[in-house]
Amino acid sequence: MRMHEIFSASAFAVLVCCFFVKTVEGVDVKYGTGAGIVPGKLNVHLVPHSHDDVGWLKTIDQYYVGSNNSIQGACVQNVLDSVVEALRRDPNRKFVFAEMAFFQRWWTEQSLDIQEQVKKLVDAGQLEFVNGGWCMHDEATTHYIDMIDQTTLGHRALKEQFNTVPRAGWQIDPFGHSAVQGYLLGAEVGFDSMHFARIDYQDRAQRKNDKSLEVIWRGSNTFGSSSQIFANAFPIHYSPPTGFHFEVNDDSVLVQDNHLLFDYNVEQRVNDFINAAMIQTNVTRTNHIMWTMGDDFQYQYAETWFRQMDKFIHYVNKDSRVNALYSTPSLYTDAKNAANEPWPIKTDDYFPYADSENAYWTGYFTSRPAFKRFVRKLSGYYLAARQLEFLVGKRSSGPNTFSLGEALGIAQHHDAVSGTAKQHTTDDYSKRLAIGVTEAEAVVSSALSCLTKKKSGVKCEDSGKTFSQCQLVNISYCPPTEKDIPQGKSLVVVAYNPLGWNRAEIVRIPVNDANLVVQDSSGNNIDAQYIALDNVTRNVREFYTKAYLGRSSGTAPKYWLHFQVSIPPLGWNTYFISKGAGKGQGTAGILSAKPQNGKIEVGKGNLKMSFSTSSGQLQRMYNSRTGVDVPVQQSYLWYGSSTGDDYDPQASGAYIFRPNGSPPTVVSRSVPLRVTRGPLVDEVYQQFNEWIYQVTRLYKDKEHAEIEFTIGPIPMDDGVGKEIITQLTANMVTNKVFHTDSNGRDFLTRVRDFREDWNLTVTQPVAGNYYPINLGIYTADKKSELSVLVDRATGGSSIKDGEIELMLHRRMISDDSRGVGEPLDERVCAGNKCEGLTIRGNYYVSINRNGEGARWRRTTGQEIYSPLLLAFTHEKTETWKSSHLTKETTMDPGYTLPLNVAVITLQELDVRTTLLRLAHLYQEGEDSTYSKLAKVELKKMFNGRKIKGVEEMSLTTNQVKSEMKKLSWKVEGGNGEEPSPVRGGPLNNSTLTVELGPMEIRTFLLKFQ
Amino acid sequence: MRMHEIFSASAFAVLVCCFFVKTVEGVDVKYGTGAGIVPGKLNVHLVPHSHDDVGWLKTIDQYYVGSNNSIQGACVQNVLDSVVEALRRDPNRKFVFAEMAFFQRWWTEQSLDIQEQVKKLVDAGQLEFVNGGWCMHDEATTHYIDMIDQTTLGHRALKEQFNTVPRAGWQIDPFGHSAVQGYLLGAEVGFDSMHFARIDYQDRAQRKNDKSLEVIWRGSNTFGSSSQIFANAFPIHYSPPTGFHFEVNDDSVLVQDNHLLFDYNVEQRVNDFINAAMIQTNVTRTNHIMWTMGDDFQYQYAETWFRQMDKFIHYVNKDSRVNALYSTPSLYTDAKNAANEPWPIKTDDYFPYADSENAYWTGYFTSRPAFKRFVRKLSGYYLAARQLEFLVGKRSSGPNTFSLGEALGIAQHHDAVSGTAKQHTTDDYSKRLAIGVTEAEAVVSSALSCLTKKKSGVKCEDSGKTFSQCQLVNISYCPPTEKDIPQGKSLVVVAYNPLGWNRAEIVRIPVNDANLVVQDSSGNNIDAQYIALDNVTRNVREFYTKAYLGRSSGTAPKYWLHFQVSIPPLGWNTYFISKGAGKGQGTAGILSAKPQNGKIEVGKGNLKMSFSTSSGQLQRMYNSRTGVDVPVQQSYLWYGSSTGDDYDPQASGAYIFRPNGSPPTVVSRSVPLRVTRGPLVDEVYQQFNEWIYQVTRLYKDKEHAEIEFTIGPIPMDDGVGKEIITQLTANMVTNKVFHTDSNGRDFLTRVRDFREDWNLTVTQPVAGNYYPINLGIYTADKKSELSVLVDRATGGSSIKDGEIELMLHRRMISDDSRGVGEPLDERVCAGNKCEGLTIRGNYYVSINRNGEGARWRRTTGQEIYSPLLLAFTHEKTETWKSSHLTKETTMDPGYTLPLNVAVITLQELDVRTTLLRLAHLYQEGEDSTYSKLAKVELKKMFNGRKIKGVEEMSLTTNQVKSEMKKLSWKVEGGNGEEPSPVRGGPLNNSTLTVELGPMEIRTFLLKFQ
Repeated sequence: MRMHEIFSASAFAVLVCCFFVKTVEGVDVKYGTGAGIVPGKLNVHLVPHSHDDVGWLKTIDQYYVGSNNSIQGACVQNVLDSVVEALRRDPNRKFVFAEMAFFQRWWTEQSLDIQEQVKKLVDAGQLEFVNGGWCMHDEATTHYIDMIDQTTLGHRALKEQFNTVPRAGWQIDPFGHSAVQGYLLGAEVGFDSMHFARIDYQDRAQRKNDKSLEVIWRGSNTFGSSSQIFANAFPIHYSPPTGFHFEVNDDSVLVQDNHLLFDYNVEQRVNDFINAAMIQTNVTRTNHIMWTMGDDFQYQYAETWFRQMDKFIHYVNKDSRVNALYSTPSLYTDAKNAANEPWPIKTDDYFPYADSENAYWTGYFTSRPAFKRFVRKLSGYYLAARQLEFLVGKRSSGPNTFSLGEALGIAQHHDAVSGTAKQHTTDDYSKRLAIGVTEAEAVVSSALSCLTKKKSGVKCEDSGKTFSQCQLVNISYCPPTEKDIPQGKSLVVVAYNPLGWNRAEIVRIPVNDANLVVQDSSGNNIDAQYIALDNVTRNVREFYTKAYLGRSSGTAPKYWLHFQVSIPPLGWNTYFISKGAGKGQGTAGILSAKPQNGKIEVGKGNLKMSFSTSSGQLQRMYNSRTGVDVPVQQSYLWYGSSTGDDYDPQASGAYIFRPNGSPPTVVSRSVPLRVTRGPLVDEVYQQFNEWIYQVTRLYKDKEHAEIEFTIGPIPMDDGVGKEIITQLTANMVTNKVFHTDSNGRDFLTRVRDFREDWNLTVTQPVAGNYYPINLGIYTADKKSELSVLVDRATGGSSIKDGEIELMLHRRMISDDSRGVGEPLDERVCAGNKCEGLTIRGNYYVSINRNGEGARWRRTTGQEIYSPLLLAFTHEKTETWKSSHLTKETTMDPGYTLPLNVAVITLQELDVRTTLLRLAHLYQEGEDSTYSKLAKVELKKMFNGRKIKGVEEMSLTTNQVKSEMKKLSWKVEGGNGEEPSPVRGGPLNNSTLTVELGPMEIRTFLLKFQ
Repeated sequence: MRMHEIFSASAFAVLVCCFFVKTVEGVDVKYGTGAGIVPGKLNVHLVPHSHDDVGWLKTIDQYYVGSNNSIQGACVQNVLDSVVEALRRDPNRKFVFAEMAFFQRWWTEQSLDIQEQVKKLVDAGQLEFVNGGWCMHDEATTHYIDMIDQTTLGHRALKEQFNTVPRAGWQIDPFGHSAVQGYLLGAEVGFDSMHFARIDYQDRAQRKNDKSLEVIWRGSNTFGSSSQIFANAFPIHYSPPTGFHFEVNDDSVLVQDNHLLFDYNVEQRVNDFINAAMIQTNVTRTNHIMWTMGDDFQYQYAETWFRQMDKFIHYVNKDSRVNALYSTPSLYTDAKNAANEPWPIKTDDYFPYADSENAYWTGYFTSRPAFKRFVRKLSGYYLAARQLEFLVGKRSSGPNTFSLGEALGIAQHHDAVSGTAKQHTTDDYSKRLAIGVTEAEAVVSSALSCLTKKKSGVKCEDSGKTFSQCQLVNISYCPPTEKDIPQGKSLVVVAYNPLGWNRAEIVRIPVNDANLVVQDSSGNNIDAQYIALDNVTRNVREFYTKAYLGRSSGTAPKYWLHFQVSIPPLGWNTYFISKGAGKGQGTAGILSAKPQNGKIEVGKGNLKMSFSTSSGQLQRMYNSRTGVDVPVQQSYLWYGSSTGDDYDPQASGAYIFRPNGSPPTVVSRSVPLRVTRGPLVDEVYQQFNEWIYQVTRLYKDKEHAEIEFTIGPIPMDDGVGKEIITQLTANMVTNKVFHTDSNGRDFLTRVRDFREDWNLTVTQPVAGNYYPINLGIYTADKKSELSVLVDRATGGSSIKDGEIELMLHRRMISDDSRGVGEPLDERVCAGNKCEGLTIRGNYYVSINRNGEGARWRRTTGQEIYSPLLLAFTHEKTETWKSSHLTKETTMDPGYTLPLNVAVITLQELDVRTTLLRLAHLYQEGEDSTYSKLAKVELKKMFNGRKIKGVEEMSLTTNQVKSEMKKLSWKVEGGNGEEPSPVRGGPLNNSTLTVELGPMEIRTFLLKFQ
């Protein structure tokens, strides 16, 4: 009670408790926060940040405005408002912000005055944008084109508003890290470093032990050291050390430095700080360590954090044992670079991610498969829509493709397409996509209307919405084709091809008349094939169109009409379907089976598949052209989801795949089999059980099988969550090796039960061998390759030699305790009926001679991603033909792009600037023909336009390519001699020919006259 | 899914979502927030506020810095920081702040720049201080002198820093409201209005029904309409209407007005707002209603509130059905006043407060009785210490009385002295008081040292700490008197009298020698009486001094030495105690009983008390001078505390007194009795049970009994909480009527089971009749008055006619669910032993002829509040006398203040200014002699000083009295003719004679030459 000495004040006297340092612009600063790096000392880089999920437990808008706080107290508006105030209070304070989806909402709401303040903060380096994409995208379930698009969206905004270029990749939360992220969305974007928190727990333990958390990451086999990046895996998480959280209402011990108040604790807290720094420096190279001073949706009142950090920097530096400073990941990286020490090399990727022995985050590779398909489908649509928008010129008013681009940008978030958001948030993502695609459909319709119209010499103005499109044609819902064709008119089908090469494909539309005449644009009748609509499709259509429309869509159409189309590159063709006089020229598919030795063989082209008539199962695939012949079975099975057990309460859930330990249950060993044959396609129907239905299609002129699965509702009445897989079991000796793509781009080699970087302790023999698939998976023996391509993000593996499995659907009863707080149990309601989600989709199977599969995977893969865009209208054939161009390419008529190059972006940014992104589709050494330098002649590509200027840019267009700087790094064991990858040479400004080496993506801003 | 129309954006275009209005100083304001009052519309006054308890669940310092947030997320530093920022963002925004204990901490930490900004905000009326005291004091357990002091502390700071004068009383949280608060700390302070949330639930229901929540409150019977105030009892609480809370992380529905985001809800929220306003307007007069936009420790990030209020004001006013505006209680009051409508009158007070039928907040009148005594004791000490500080001149360095004043200011908080804070917070209050009194003791010691020293002509410099004082003398701990007096020296006892009249009293100090000689300052030996220390005191001393010192205090002294002292007004006298040669002149108290007819009569003076020798109980009191003779019993009982029952889970706790329904248990019907008689005092010892001990003292020349109780540890081994009362049961017909004081000042008439303002439904016949007592309680029949005075805040009542009860101690096992979250179960630990709190204290009983009791209550009451201040040292008597003034008054030697006037403040504010506050002690009509105009001659009072200037001020010195303005109000049934109270006339500047009417307090700032 005798504390006289620490408590003595004079009435109303000014209590001199702190010193004030006058700094620039009249800001009063209490603490000495201006420390920079001090050589020879341990430098603790404090990096203030707020991790603001672009939707998760709440929707993005709820997070932004701070509503729905009963779920989670989070308000990004507060973060940005208060951070700006806090930064203005002390010019030494810094903050990094990542998510443009939030920042741009906020920015548009600010007054010019605040905008000016923010510009000053950015210019001064106080506010630094990291990542700078629209969201912090997922890395497992995203397609590289979406990753590029969403990053570009953010980077262009930052460039335009602040003339700033983010230097650091900041993927702190995604659940594993992809090779494409490292080299393409990292190095090729121009980042100097990549920072993340989540790597495998075994990997992390070893890396802490040998101080290899920080590495030089070479994610590309093709590019090696030429696309490397400094990668920093955090030792714990993206939060501060324990006891250094300072959010409003947090319970950390605050630095109390006012001698006039009780609980003065400066020395104690300085010691705490130094102790925490010592722990970290023991696992980190060089005398620089970084503390991520933030967490999810922190800095709602930024002053709470900065006040404490100010004090720590001041008192710790006064103590002088270590040096604390406000920093950013790029300043930290510069410091690491300046140390000029060698770093370990890391290749490939950081998948799969496990945070403990039974917690492999491999479930989300498949979670919410319908949403994943929606995202992927609209990704392709967005690519085509922007091409069309460019081709006719972007409108200054009216619909445009931005809202779809933004919705897709949001959907790439690591809790969006990953399938790990709450249901209501996922619904919000879907709604945004639906709104976006509705607007984009108007763009497409209007553009096609203009493009196809014979030129009148003036710029085509919007002629109203002439065309209909059918987003739900997969379940036979397509009003313009279903309805009766008016007498004298035709159903006009315009098919647009967003790829740079000619395509011949079989299209399939639902109709109600089996006596139609199909004519091509030259007026020739062409082959048509009808197949009666099956009951499974009929039922799915009935329920899901009711859910979609809010009312019945009426009777299902009777037939699928198939006909073959041929479309020029970046162009279109027109087909006319009219009522036949009596019998049309079409052939009904024949429901027949000609069993031969207990098996049925199907296949219109070189590929044949044979099925057992007794079991109904696939038995072999045979390619008559290549001679490849693979005995292969195909089946469906399910893993029972763990709900936790005595040993470990970990359940399978939205993130985590934890099978309950039993072998997967085979859905059926004997399957009823039906076969339809016809001139264009053979179809094999297999009802595996009540809720798994499959159609295998073998098209004329195609060397792969298209397998359409319809799965659901997954029954839960036995109380067991189920994770549905399809397995292809081939008679191949594959030695544990298989290959999966990285974000739909590079294929990486996977070895079962093995990791390149450490001695794997296998705890989850299935889940621990799952990898994300966005393009495909293949395995090979000495003779053959068995390849599977997918239509969306999917998890998959090869659990036994010769086997490939894909997880197609999941439904379960438990949450997996990673925050989402809901079991992944998707339901759909229509009218008064709710049931588990049914999904429908395709995968594609091909067999090839060893070393020849890439050609199929790359070309077909690109066609799957970028399907033909079909638009429908009704008009008299002759009327149409007289006023419209029926078949055109927008390129030089004699020109096509080589088959190893795709136009992955063609977008008019503004009246002056067009963005062109070309991608070489093959890896180094992948194909003897196509893994070579490819050329694109821009003059021919943009036929009829005069290119006034071309500038090659960084991947996200925010830097001129030739001016990009990169840090150079010493590596351990590096002899300095890296094989030099093939890259295209500088663009010749007169020929305007673009060269692309394998896997190269080149980005240009074009100006036309 | 077709929401196309509400979601259309252009890439990177500036989205025009809001209009920006440029206002002063370049601030950008988005919303039209500048609304003033609109006549003819319902005006909704939004009053932004944060209710910041000066300690409760956390200590004041923890609340200030925001530490210990696991208990409660609260940080006042954040509130003030962020409010200032938020106010600067829009000059229309307003905020009111009350607690100077927080504001001053914050202010001293701010840079000059921020201080300038704050001054501008205050000048502009954006930041308005309400109440403006150091804390929001309790109104039941506080003494009016403390209330004035703590309010003055805050008001002076505000005046000096901002030249501002708070206009509104803001007692929003205290648990009932006192008459003294209404008229003295309200009207006399200069407030125009008083605002509060807590009034009895029955009262509130009726007031809502007849729209009488807002009244003209005349709290003083003496002053009536001349000290009236507009009082606003809130219809619900001091929070906003449901759904309008906007703290960080709150879950209210936010106004979402961005059409580009989902969940747009402006119309819905405007309707919500108007609906809530309509509910309130139905219970409110005039077209002005007030919303208290805040709550406990809200505005940690002020922008969260202001952003929403901005929007509401903007959109509600756009809607235009009602008018919403930023306002303050004073602007609201002006609007009410301008309406020029008549208001109901309210007299007396708002006690007791119940929030439901079994929840009478009358437990806290007694909760933490030891702490309540500590506060009251230091209140008196602070008064004396400031006098002494003034008398020698305040030092520019070294100890002063500020820290005690501040600690007392904090302790008046409505969760401090009320006993309703958590234990650790209460410990913090005690620590502050202990630190404060330690510093004040140094001031006192130094001042006495200077004052008593014979003048050397130069200003006395601190001569070191010569004197010891004994804060724990009540339990016999007083080292300077206990220890052996060195040979040749005397124990020098200087007694200072802080009252303006002569006092003769018996002092009592512990000694170890029964052969001492006591001499007065003239060298005369005077009567001394020794009484052996009893075992109860010995045990209490042993345990509590160990708890206090952290070690044993050694053997207890053997005796109490009593001797009579006589001290001049505002002066001192010196007594010398030395070892006698052989036997001293003292008389040992004689342990004897002379039973007469089975009773023992004791009493040295006119008052006699007789006790039954068989039961040991008091039987009657008799005053031989007045002839008053009252048969009276005195006993101890306890109520079992309710822990809730089937009907209502409400438990008795720190706030609430809810007996369990059984009649109180009588502690003992037969009590061992011992009596000691002597020349100065007769003492009666009664051990009521193991844990209740009582000593009754009847002093020579006094006409009252001093009853010292020692209670505790209250046993809890039966699982029953106990609330200990003492009862005086007199044979008097009192017709349900009794009287209790208001904050130690006015006596109010109480009628059992009755309320003046509404028809009381009696649900708690005991707890619902309890009232706070700070001075005393009395009851009367036609002949006599039975009066009891207390030494601290206490709850009491008269549950049966002729009976008075005081609740002295409480201990229980349940929390009463009003937030504190701890049962009131005070424990004390020393060494390894912890036990329930034992308390010791006094109450005083007198019997008087009807109409004559006031004189005893007022004079003795003031002496109890302001006891003699004793200081001890050792010196040779002659040495001392030769160099010291042994007996002096600081007034003109022939002058004393009249017995109806007390100096309640005499304090040097700074070298130029001295504060003098004089209080008339009697109510109008209370006493035939003393309830008259009294006079004080300042020239005589300040003998030897030349008064250069005198200015009469408002009660808290922040306004010149003559310049104070007050609003005039129409009242219902008012005929405009109010009896005019007696008030002193203006100070005559030449005679400097101050007149004081009954109950008048006059405040002056003096300047001396």
